[in-house]
Amino acid sequence: MVALMPVGNIGRSVPRLESRAKVMGQAEYTHHLRLPGMLYGKIFRSTLPHALIKSVDTSAAKAVEGVFRVVTIDDIRTVIPHPYYGPAFHDQPVLADGKVRFAGEPVAVVLASDPRVAEYAASLITAEYEELPAVLDEVEAATSDICVHDELKPAATFPDLQHLKGRRGTNVALDYRLVRGNVEEAFAAADHVFEHTFRCQQAMHTPMEPFVSIADVRDGRMTLHTASQGPSFVRIEMARLLGWPENRVRVKVPHLGGGFGGKLYIKLEALVTSLSLLVQRPVKISLTMEEQFFMVTKHACTFTIKSGVNNDGKVVARKCRILWNGGAYADIGPRVTQKAGFTSAGPYDIDNVEIESLAVYTNRPPAGALRGFGAPQAAWAYECHTDLIAEALNFDKIEFRRQNLLQEGRPQASGTPVHDAAFEKAMDQVADRLDWHKPFDRGNGRIRRGRGLAVGIKGITSPTTSVAIVNLYGDGSCGLYIGTVDMGQGSDTVMAQIVAEVLGLDAEAVHVIHPDTDVTPYDMGTLGSRSTFHMGTAVRLAAEDVLRKIDDLAKELGLPPNSNLPVSEMLRKKYGMQAGNIIGTGSFIPDYKKPDPETGQTPKATPFWGVGANGAEVEIDTETGEIKIVKLVSVVDAGVAINPRAVRQQVSGAAIMQMGFTMTENMVFRDGQLTNGSLADYKIPSLLDMPEQFVNEYVESRQHSGPFGAKGTGESSTIALSPAIGNAIADAIGVHLTDLPLTQESIFRAIQKKNGTPLPEDDND
Amino acid sequence: MVALMPVGNIGRSVPRLESRAKVMGQAEYTHHLRLPGMLYGKIFRSTLPHALIKSVDTSAAKAVEGVFRVVTIDDIRTVIPHPYYGPAFHDQPVLADGKVRFAGEPVAVVLASDPRVAEYAASLITAEYEELPAVLDEVEAATSDICVHDELKPAATFPDLQHLKGRRGTNVALDYRLVRGNVEEAFAAADHVFEHTFRCQQAMHTPMEPFVSIADVRDGRMTLHTASQGPSFVRIEMARLLGWPENRVRVKVPHLGGGFGGKLYIKLEALVTSLSLLVQRPVKISLTMEEQFFMVTKHACTFTIKSGVNNDGKVVARKCRILWNGGAYADIGPRVTQKAGFTSAGPYDIDNVEIESLAVYTNRPPAGALRGFGAPQAAWAYECHTDLIAEALNFDKIEFRRQNLLQEGRPQASGTPVHDAAFEKAMDQVADRLDWHKPFDRGNGRIRRGRGLAVGIKGITSPTTSVAIVNLYGDGSCGLYIGTVDMGQGSDTVMAQIVAEVLGLDAEAVHVIHPDTDVTPYDMGTLGSRSTFHMGTAVRLAAEDVLRKIDDLAKELGLPPNSNLPVSEMLRKKYGMQAGNIIGTGSFIPDYKKPDPETGQTPKATPFWGVGANGAEVEIDTETGEIKIVKLVSVVDAGVAINPRAVRQQVSGAAIMQMGFTMTENMVFRDGQLTNGSLADYKIPSLLDMPEQFVNEYVESRQHSGPFGAKGTGESSTIALSPAIGNAIADAIGVHLTDLPLTQESIFRAIQKKNGTPLPEDDND
Repeated sequence: MVALMPVGNIGRSVPRLESRAKVMGQAEYTHHLRLPGMLYGKIFRSTLPHALIKSVDTSAAKAVEGVFRVVTIDDIRTVIPHPYYGPAFHDQPVLADGKVRFAGEPVAVVLASDPRVAEYAASLITAEYEELPAVLDEVEAATSDICVHDELKPAATFPDLQHLKGRRGTNVALDYRLVRGNVEEAFAAADHVFEHTFRCQQAMHTPMEPFVSIADVRDGRMTLHTASQGPSFVRIEMARLLGWPENRVRVKVPHLGGGFGGKLYIKLEALVTSLSLLVQRPVKISLTMEEQFFMVTKHACTFTIKSGVNNDGKVVARKCRILWNGGAYADIGPRVTQKAGFTSAGPYDIDNVEIESLAVYTNRPPAGALRGFGAPQAAWAYECHTDLIAEALNFDKIEFRRQNLLQEGRPQASGTPVHDAAFEKAMDQVADRLDWHKPFDRGNGRIRRGRGLAVGIKGITSPTTSVAIVNLYGDGSCGLYIGTVDMGQGSDTVMAQIVAEVLGLDAEAVHVIHPDTDVTPYDMGTLGSRSTFHMGTAVRLAAEDVLRKIDDLAKELGLPPNSNLPVSEMLRKKYGMQAGNIIGTGSFIPDYKKPDPETGQTPKATPFWGVGANGAEVEIDTETGEIKIVKLVSVVDAGVAINPRAVRQQVSGAAIMQMGFTMTENMVFRDGQLTNGSLADYKIPSLLDMPEQFVNEYVESRQHSGPFGAKGTGESSTIALSPAIGNAIADAIGVHLTDLPLTQESIFRAIQKKNGTPLPEDDND
Repeated sequence: MVALMPVGNIGRSVPRLESRAKVMGQAEYTHHLRLPGMLYGKIFRSTLPHALIKSVDTSAAKAVEGVFRVVTIDDIRTVIPHPYYGPAFHDQPVLADGKVRFAGEPVAVVLASDPRVAEYAASLITAEYEELPAVLDEVEAATSDICVHDELKPAATFPDLQHLKGRRGTNVALDYRLVRGNVEEAFAAADHVFEHTFRCQQAMHTPMEPFVSIADVRDGRMTLHTASQGPSFVRIEMARLLGWPENRVRVKVPHLGGGFGGKLYIKLEALVTSLSLLVQRPVKISLTMEEQFFMVTKHACTFTIKSGVNNDGKVVARKCRILWNGGAYADIGPRVTQKAGFTSAGPYDIDNVEIESLAVYTNRPPAGALRGFGAPQAAWAYECHTDLIAEALNFDKIEFRRQNLLQEGRPQASGTPVHDAAFEKAMDQVADRLDWHKPFDRGNGRIRRGRGLAVGIKGITSPTTSVAIVNLYGDGSCGLYIGTVDMGQGSDTVMAQIVAEVLGLDAEAVHVIHPDTDVTPYDMGTLGSRSTFHMGTAVRLAAEDVLRKIDDLAKELGLPPNSNLPVSEMLRKKYGMQAGNIIGTGSFIPDYKKPDPETGQTPKATPFWGVGANGAEVEIDTETGEIKIVKLVSVVDAGVAINPRAVRQQVSGAAIMQMGFTMTENMVFRDGQLTNGSLADYKIPSLLDMPEQFVNEYVESRQHSGPFGAKGTGESSTIALSPAIGNAIADAIGVHLTDLPLTQESIFRAIQKKNGTPLPEDDND
């Protein structure tokens, strides 16, 4: 092999390649794009959570000057006979089809060259409904006779969902079960049994860049410019909807202003595709911040957890039952149910485990993936539960965890062995940053202080595929073709570092070509902390393929070994001028067929483990419930950090985001209607909410199967952050809150209840 | 290897893939593109052919409301210290630099958001000059003391031009010489010696889509959207100008409305690149049809040819001296001089050959490549000369040619052996279509009729490189990444046919991705009939690489041989869903190191031979000189025609174009000023000029080194068309015209002169 010196790209905090473009306002976003003849679509939405549509009156809208067309599902059906889509279930119509299933569901679209005209005209549409009883709560919905869908329609692409096909009379879209050992016998034999129920609220992704998609059909091809985290998926699903081969659909994604799982799968793409096909013009739809509440959300859930524990502190059995509130359409909810399900017993080594995880349809806006894929909801339950047990049995909370944490090589509940997962190391670092073993003044007056910590585990969506091309040009500079979407997480930079390390370049010199399915090869999606591991490996393989080809070229040219002739000179020798390319390709899917050398088991649940530990120190005004987060500590396992600063930014970004879901964010419904659907009423964290001390770190524990030892870290600090704060509050006020968010009001109510003076209940849904 | 059935894509007249988009007005052209914040540039041009610039007064232009900036070379130099470019010589300044070298040379540019404002303001600019004597004629310039350039500056990329570096006091940019045998001895020994001088006029490419380029510099990258035939060259040359690596320059080319060699190398690209860098905004410049006369042209030339012929009709010696009028800047002229030079003795087997071919600077608009790369100018001389000899020695014109034509395996003048070149077959087919061997009535009154034919040879620019990527998507549909520019010649379709044939698909199902140097790999350029042969081979190799990888995948999956499992199913088996890619790459440069098996000689002049034969039947009104082309026959050697209809369209397109250069097109200068610089005065062929019978055909003579036996045909019918018509005129009126074009006036003058009543000379330059 040609000897190229690594130039120290791994472990170097290379500044983001795109920073300058963003700061200078030169970064491309889909919102900027205008195409000749383009129409803007504005959506008319349902006002009821569950109803049959008797009629839609579009006459006033059509009469508005400048309106090009008003479109309902009947129009869509003239170009797409079966206009239903979805990643797990083909259950979502492009526009409401005879029935609305949540308040805010798109019913009609007005198209006009002027978006203000379209908006005004859309406001003139009216619909007549026959109202149906609605079901909003996941617990109620799981057994209700009120069915959101008449029949389950799993996507043919998922063999494991096919047994659900045609199932009727239920809102349970998926019932995931995992049984290991015998929990009932173990509960009976255990010294102590604990059971608690926890609840998480529905929340929103709130990307800074709202949803936007443009479809441009011409000459038998469909080009989509879209703010998507999954261009390959969009292409395949649009090709299916259109009945076209993949190569007639092109999906281009420039920079993304955040995604967090919201911009995965199909969002506006099916709608704009249908509209463009119908009117044979480019069509753009961009949502307002308010409309985003009706697109996709974070699952609310109800989690009952029961554990058998012996006097020595060993957890011997655990039973988990989670009902996930999936809203009106499945989106990727069934996969969240399954993936968060199998880790819902936590990062603990428990011989007897039984898990039931149910995806439940309700008449709410759909829920999907949100930075953690359900793992933070599960951890909220199992880590509050852990503290409750430790408190009840009077164990040190760290030592109790340490005794039960999964160790290297041990099988997780799913049977998948644990490797390269630094649960204990991360926890100890959090404890250290909290001065856990030093005396702590909890106060005894109006102001009380508390500390808490928690440890989380997450499986990675699997098995999934990434493909990369590295193209070395005639002067030795290079381009990297990847479908990974850089939505702020820094993937361009990290992938450039990997190419650079293999080829002996500077990362700054690598040009990353943004997703365009015509040219960047397949990638399953930018989601679930998978890119550094999966695409990183594909990129490494592609760069190594280039190295091999350079080696072949050197031999072809008869160069002596280690001639150190620059590649540009080799190409010049071969082609007689500055010409040619050396093109390498890399394709990666984790190998699930190879059994683990130690256990002999074939791993299948995850190719690596997401590991995060969090800690919090809080101060509470017991007379008002007001809470101040004095210190928030997050430590993740990064494997080997390819870009230390980028990892820390991921850790802090995820922590702030999860802090919002923990403290304030909550979609509040009344009679099935969202009552706080604006950023004035729905409160995301601001600068004023930042913790006084905000510690974001990582530990390194080489991921042996990862590129240069790396693993993904995008979600790891979300997992256990809520219980860390919840446990700190309990430490301060002596009572555990079970429901998120942990608002001033809920803290105040808990204090009042503990003091024997409970406040009257709120009447929200 | 996986067995895929060829579905008969080769030899099938697949309709152009892009036809529908073009007919529907949906094809993308650079002219359509508008970018946010884009400025339009309008050029202020010199009014003198040769002068020092004393001052440029831009004050009135700057005062126009809406003018963003007025730019001269001094401004350009603030961002590009050495603003000179060119493919062969770095002799052309981005804007005139202290001196103007032709009337029409760009001196300043006005930038404004409104192109009409820019145009108006440009009209207010004035310049003060110190006029220098100008030299317009190539013969005069070759020995003149008036030097267009002080010093020769060959591009460092061409090692064979380096000996010219720094040469001063000459307008001869390149003196190409070829000596074979000893002509002087052979002349002395020959039975007859003939010498004639011929002249060709300067003409224009006249693409339907005028020149247009947009440069968009942002974030340290330069993106060019440009109507170019050579995106890879533009990238490399702009990277050189900017001092940047290639991967910071991106060149995108959508459809092209014709190129014909005019849109090769650097045209507006250096100017818009400099301007965008200077003002940090996107800049677009599009020329009017009139301005195109000042961009690049077809070489005028003077060709003296001398032959020694024996009584048996064998040509034993030939001496050629060609002076090429390159205009003020070299462009690719030196290469034209060289490439047309080495075939300027024609398609004949002559033992003693001496060729001198000189690229000469003059004070005219620059000349470059134009559909034939000088070969038609050379053939005008050698094939009129051939008829003159045959007439003088009373040989049948076909049999005289047959006796001297190069046969399979014989060395051409350059020593390169001739293979797969159907000179005789093409000539005989032309003769057949003209009913050559049947009696022919030449008339004897006012209307006279004549017939003529000619045979041409052309070498192909070499050695040159093409690289291709074939990407098979998860559903088995595929994309082809190529830098070949489809400018109307049908290359997309032919390349799709090649991919389809290898992979067992329908050509119509292959998606061709248009040139974008970020993604499509290197290609030397779409020029010189090279694409089908070079890129066709690269595409074939890339598709075969895909086949190999499919084979590997089948083995990996343990499939039985010839399982016939579709690739989409294989990918699904491997990846568990519709996912992944199979990516093949192909890189081709003709192997010049391998000696010819018969001659033992190492070929180097050309990888294949362009072969065309033409015939004409004309009718002339001897009282007015009016000429009617009754029949025009063109037959080329296509190797194996991949797309028969596309070949015939190439043949007819080239024939019409060359007919224009033969009959009417002529850039007329007076005092160094172009006097007919508009399509009202400069006459290209219209429907009314079409021959009554227009026969366009090909013969098939497998090109063994070509993809599926194919060779390029884009220029073949231009080569010998002018002498076919010239010879027909001579056959009708009994006198040979020596100067192109063959206008009614020149024919009338020739008749008058023959009749002993010559008209007074015109006083044009």
